Amino acid sequence: MSESPDFFTRHRELLERAVRATTERASWSAYPEMPNDPAYGEDGMATGSEAFQALVGKPFDLGQPGEPVAAGEVSPYGLELGISYPYLAPDEAVAIAKTAGRAWRRASADTRAGVAAEILARLNAASFEIAQAVQHTTGQAFAMAFQAGGPHAQDRGLEAVAYAWAEQKHHPASAIWSKPQRKGDPITMEKTFTPVGRGVALVIACVTFPTWNSYPGLFASLVTGNPVLVKPHPKAILPLAVTVRIAREVLAEAGFDPNVVLLVPEKPGSPNAGDLARHPDVRIIDYTGSTSFGDWLEANARQAVVYAEKAGLNTVVLDSTDNYKGLLSNLAFSLSLYSGQMCTTPQNLLIARTGMTTDQGVKTPEQFAQDLSAALDGLLGDPKRAAGILGAITSTAVTDRLEQAAATGSVVHPSSAVENPQHPEAVVRTPLVVALAASGEEVYTREWFGPISFVIETESTKESLEVLRRTVGEHGALTAMVHSTDPDVLEAARDAALDVGVHLSENLTSPAVFVNQTTAFSDFHGSPASPAATAALSDPAYVTGRFTTLQSRRHVAAV
Amino acid sequence: MSESPDFFTRHRELLERAVRATTERASWSAYPEMPNDPAYGEDGMATGSEAFQALVGKPFDLGQPGEPVAAGEVSPYGLELGISYPYLAPDEAVAIAKTAGRAWRRASADTRAGVAAEILARLNAASFEIAQAVQHTTGQAFAMAFQAGGPHAQDRGLEAVAYAWAEQKHHPASAIWSKPQRKGDPITMEKTFTPVGRGVALVIACVTFPTWNSYPGLFASLVTGNPVLVKPHPKAILPLAVTVRIAREVLAEAGFDPNVVLLVPEKPGSPNAGDLARHPDVRIIDYTGSTSFGDWLEANARQAVVYAEKAGLNTVVLDSTDNYKGLLSNLAFSLSLYSGQMCTTPQNLLIARTGMTTDQGVKTPEQFAQDLSAALDGLLGDPKRAAGILGAITSTAVTDRLEQAAATGSVVHPSSAVENPQHPEAVVRTPLVVALAASGEEVYTREWFGPISFVIETESTKESLEVLRRTVGEHGALTAMVHSTDPDVLEAARDAALDVGVHLSENLTSPAVFVNQTTAFSDFHGSPASPAATAALSDPAYVTGRFTTLQSRRHVAAV
Repeated sequence: MSESPDFFTRHRELLERAVRATTERASWSAYPEMPNDPAYGEDGMATGSEAFQALVGKPFDLGQPGEPVAAGEVSPYGLELGISYPYLAPDEAVAIAKTAGRAWRRASADTRAGVAAEILARLNAASFEIAQAVQHTTGQAFAMAFQAGGPHAQDRGLEAVAYAWAEQKHHPASAIWSKPQRKGDPITMEKTFTPVGRGVALVIACVTFPTWNSYPGLFASLVTGNPVLVKPHPKAILPLAVTVRIAREVLAEAGFDPNVVLLVPEKPGSPNAGDLARHPDVRIIDYTGSTSFGDWLEANARQAVVYAEKAGLNTVVLDSTDNYKGLLSNLAFSLSLYSGQMCTTPQNLLIARTGMTTDQGVKTPEQFAQDLSAALDGLLGDPKRAAGILGAITSTAVTDRLEQAAATGSVVHPSSAVENPQHPEAVVRTPLVVALAASGEEVYTREWFGPISFVIETESTKESLEVLRRTVGEHGALTAMVHSTDPDVLEAARDAALDVGVHLSENLTSPAVFVNQTTAFSDFHGSPASPAATAALSDPAYVTGRFTTLQSRRHVAAV
Repeated sequence: MSESPDFFTRHRELLERAVRATTERASWSAYPEMPNDPAYGEDGMATGSEAFQALVGKPFDLGQPGEPVAAGEVSPYGLELGISYPYLAPDEAVAIAKTAGRAWRRASADTRAGVAAEILARLNAASFEIAQAVQHTTGQAFAMAFQAGGPHAQDRGLEAVAYAWAEQKHHPASAIWSKPQRKGDPITMEKTFTPVGRGVALVIACVTFPTWNSYPGLFASLVTGNPVLVKPHPKAILPLAVTVRIAREVLAEAGFDPNVVLLVPEKPGSPNAGDLARHPDVRIIDYTGSTSFGDWLEANARQAVVYAEKAGLNTVVLDSTDNYKGLLSNLAFSLSLYSGQMCTTPQNLLIARTGMTTDQGVKTPEQFAQDLSAALDGLLGDPKRAAGILGAITSTAVTDRLEQAAATGSVVHPSSAVENPQHPEAVVRTPLVVALAASGEEVYTREWFGPISFVIETESTKESLEVLRRTVGEHGALTAMVHSTDPDVLEAARDAALDVGVHLSENLTSPAVFVNQTTAFSDFHGSPASPAATAALSDPAYVTGRFTTLQSRRHVAAV
């Protein structure tokens, strides 16, 4: 390996800076988020489009074992991707990864972190290609596909690398232990401490954020010494195929078996996640998706540690505000972004029957609902702008759910179709907002994934907080927000959020920070304290279960 | 709370020193291990004996809720303890702990670490009392009961405190996040980060090391903000009753509800561990004991994170040595200490048919077995000395097992009864050593808890290492040792140990370090990489799952 490039030295400074950022949780990012950043060059868009177009309609060349199988991915914007990917039976895939993992385990944490940082650097350079792949699988508008699928996902990946690298270096590689004896020299021992990965890791990705939600697990497992199987959602394989291709290139250049990272798509119509997850040699699973399959994994993949992000009831408590206009536009954007197809989109908006005090007078639930509706119409009035915010609907399950939800209460803002001028085949829908009474718990204690929210009338802010405690406590949530100018209400909301294990946003009224967005190296995403997840992105708990430190000891002459 | 003593300030230096020790894993201990250390005063033994005697034959005053129930503890040295302890039904106990835990959660990590350090300081001052309680429940000889039950257990407790305290401070209490905007001031937010405990913790202790094996879980859960239920083994309640009494005193002095720590013994004949463990509000379980109940906990207490130490096949590979005499006496002591009633006692001694090369010539398996037998006889020839090393047998299960084991192969060293001159009622037995062929896997792949070991003849050291890989890989182990002067064999043994997830001791021949003993702040005990455990004492993974860091964020004026 002496002739392999020294990726650790190349990225050491970045890694150290990233580790510092994990201890500060202030403002830091490694990868520019704007597509027009000079770092991406002037022809980034053109080169990325070419690279993407070159992939369409062909077998994807990963250089990995497996028989090519047509995947049938269709862009929500109309394009049939027509790509085939190598298929591996679960047993085969696990065996190949396990073999490749042996030398990877023996590499040092430094070496592994260096390889990971180089993969991320090349993913960053491929951000335009990945953005196209994300757009044409998830239905995100391009700007979002670039940011969330590119630099933001890469930042979350680097965050996981930083925690994983630092935690493996918590203990020294070796230590001298010495104990004075009553007679003669002290007894002296040399002790060696080796971080050892848990075993084959499996990442089960989702359709809406194939890279953002899978990079943390992929990189955390990789850096802690585990080979990784990347199982994409059958409708969003391409972004992860590009990712795996780049990871394999870097691994090979660094002198490792590239099979340390394998893509394991399913054959169309034949789900393989369950068989992969229950394989005795699969010891780590990262999963994003439905609560039902997440619960199944936890109950059945007992040989593995499971880091799951499932569904929840994202809740907003509306008590009072000194910036009603800002509140409305901030919330309207949060409900609209990517048609609410985010695990973080607010669903339950709780407001007291007596209304909320604002800088524009008291607003009753009815008035608030009307004003929110108007804010949505204002935001989404121009079709081109609307398409840029809403993206496209990923599946008929979402449109079916929209119809079903409209029948649950009194419709405040109907979901209407918007034509995307550039992509007429895209299904674009504005958010549905429905008014419910607090007693409609049977409706609003289910997650309605998609552009669906409820304005729920309670007796008082106190009851709103009780509803938050009860429903989020039982069903979990990825996000919670409170709007209040009353310090006591804010304090009570913080207390409730700590009790039910959800991160809290307070009084978001700017056009720059939204409850459904978190920023790597500062905001945590998800929490094992909530039924909605078993992990947070990212913290030490997210990485320490992926490896263990083993010791050997021997006598040495006194030093 | 302003008038409560500031335990954090009192112990801050110790805590910082302990944290440094966890990052060095060299030689450090907080509590003197010798009973004659001046720190314990001149009348430690007398005061401790008085304190112990004052407890015998009475209801134990814990000042906690519960109806007194006679426990029926009988010392393996003959004394009937005749003590009753407060009994709480599982639902009651969990509810009381949960209520008490609210204010404890709100305390800072510093405050909690200070309280824990004060509890440990008072436990240390009570080491003689605890030593008597340990001796008269576990059957350990006094010297061992003092060290392992007192200062060594306290060191393991402080080690867990140090990891728990430091990990909660990985992230800052708050941070300022700022993002430049194209126009105007940057967007600035204040973010608050709060470590929050997972919920009610349960510690299920064992009969042989009631304090040593339960302090790490007790203190790790406590310092990370969780109330703790301490469930003692029905035959070894007293050492933990003294522990809980001291913890409650300190909690009350610090201004907390003492019910943050509760003793939850079972009613004689009515096990309560299963009901406690499955209670939905019990979110953390620490357990030491049989593999079968450990597996049951993992399968059934699904709402909790389980840190379990179960049974394994502790293995020694005998290849070669340059100190045969040292090897024999070291091993004889390891087999004899506390009659092998340790989860770390070597069971399977693997030696090639062709023998091991030593400084005294080649020793065949037969010769080695004879020499080990002679070493045991030499070590245990004097009844008083023997009693001091062997302690007493805790239960008839062990003596029954001795009989059963003697029938499995050719007896090399029979287990014989020894009279304890001071305590004629104590059941004292020397180690049984049985010779087996490598094919006798059905016998030696079970754990034979107690003074039972097998000399197993293999084809070669290579086969010995394969047997280690196969049996320890499948059934786990807490300890492994290799004796070899050949660097290649040592390297192969290290590799095998890393593969099967066991800590390795090499060539222990001194009269001061034994494979069955680990020292806090330097040696790890157990590993989640082995089926024998799901945790190591102690490392960051041992504490990070006990809490999570929750965030709230709000806009502030630019700073």
